[in-house]
Amino acid sequence: MPSPKDHVKAIVFDVFGTVVDWRGSTIRELTSFGRGRGITIAWDKFADDWRGLYQPSMEEVRSGRRPFAILDDLHRESLLKLLANHKIVTIEPHEIEHLVRIWHRLQAWPDMAGGLARLGTRVITGTLSNGNVGLLTRLAKHNGLPFDVILGAETAQAYKPQPAAYLRSAALLNLQPHEMMLAAAHNDDLAAAAKAGYRTAFIVRPGEHGPGIVKDLKAEHAWDVITDSCHGLADAMGCRPA
Amino acid sequence: MPSPKDHVKAIVFDVFGTVVDWRGSTIRELTSFGRGRGITIAWDKFADDWRGLYQPSMEEVRSGRRPFAILDDLHRESLLKLLANHKIVTIEPHEIEHLVRIWHRLQAWPDMAGGLARLGTRVITGTLSNGNVGLLTRLAKHNGLPFDVILGAETAQAYKPQPAAYLRSAALLNLQPHEMMLAAAHNDDLAAAAKAGYRTAFIVRPGEHGPGIVKDLKAEHAWDVITDSCHGLADAMGCRPA
Repeated sequence: MPSPKDHVKAIVFDVFGTVVDWRGSTIRELTSFGRGRGITIAWDKFADDWRGLYQPSMEEVRSGRRPFAILDDLHRESLLKLLANHKIVTIEPHEIEHLVRIWHRLQAWPDMAGGLARLGTRVITGTLSNGNVGLLTRLAKHNGLPFDVILGAETAQAYKPQPAAYLRSAALLNLQPHEMMLAAAHNDDLAAAAKAGYRTAFIVRPGEHGPGIVKDLKAEHAWDVITDSCHGLADAMGCRPA
Repeated sequence: MPSPKDHVKAIVFDVFGTVVDWRGSTIRELTSFGRGRGITIAWDKFADDWRGLYQPSMEEVRSGRRPFAILDDLHRESLLKLLANHKIVTIEPHEIEHLVRIWHRLQAWPDMAGGLARLGTRVITGTLSNGNVGLLTRLAKHNGLPFDVILGAETAQAYKPQPAAYLRSAALLNLQPHEMMLAAAHNDDLAAAAKAGYRTAFIVRPGEHGPGIVKDLKAEHAWDVITDSCHGLADAMGCRPA
């Protein structure tokens, strides 16, 4: 029976939450940094607040109120705000950079490397993230993730969920939107991708958020694939077992 | 003894000639196509003429006489000119695309996959080619080349040897030019990269051109590394043997 999946030539992944555990990784690194510097605050809350400034900071770009800026720069600005709120004022520039670069070292979910290797035998695999190219390249390398290509907001010069982020990424691969599939742990990202003509794969990541956040714990639409790991996606795409 | 190579954090490769044998590959595919269609012309000459239109077609973009266009489109325009010159007029659109896509399937020199794997243990590896992202992604995948990132004229929106092609590629990796190294089989590419602040590695590829072309058979400057294979570059960078 033919399926919309039959025409998929590239699968691109949302990254923060879908590919990597941004929350666990940032809490670990912030806590370790705080311990070394003798700064005892609730670093898990700090991590959530930092991530909380993610959408508002991108919205400044999406709205046209400021020119395109890469995520590293938005992360740095958000960090400086939070440090000021906490009256943490003795941090050196190289320490700021160390903290901004936490996002270049996030740890991948354990199914990603193996699942990507399987998918890569059938389709082009890539990122489609709001992270910048340098961040995504280091993150993939740090985790041994065999992406074929690094795409995202910086290569599209548009932040998801703007249509241009999806459409320009397809064009960069000489593909039509219906030949692209987005894999993501977030229903709103998939909805925007579907609207742009993409196929969709929902990978539920119940461990993404901290206690009390009940978001994206299930598929909110009949996405083309609904699964709980990259291996599940590889199975659905008919890839051979590892 | 410290060396300029000590600061290199990413090595990016010129592709046509340096990584892949464009001439052997295009001649083979064109000849096979001609045999299937009963068109007997000197396909080796045709391949050289096609490549001969490469620089003039990019110069239209570099000069500002036309807006940025990806290499696939320049390749297609050059091909149509040559087919018209040869009075070959019965070619179908899907055949044109098949021929344009020859450049997505070029064969890599045999030392590339192994040499890149070694380099990847020490630095970020990538392309820095005038090819477009879709072309380079397929070419790397076709040959099993483990590049960490696909960069080039399309991501920089500038064709080498324009300085922007080198400078924007460094910026995409959050690196300073002196942290970048270009590996290329062409002295003029290396000269432009060096002028932009890059480190340089010359990989001589005597098999790139056909008989009678005596170009780039030796290093014309004291490049940081001078070698004859990607393994030689890995040795020079202090990578462990495979």
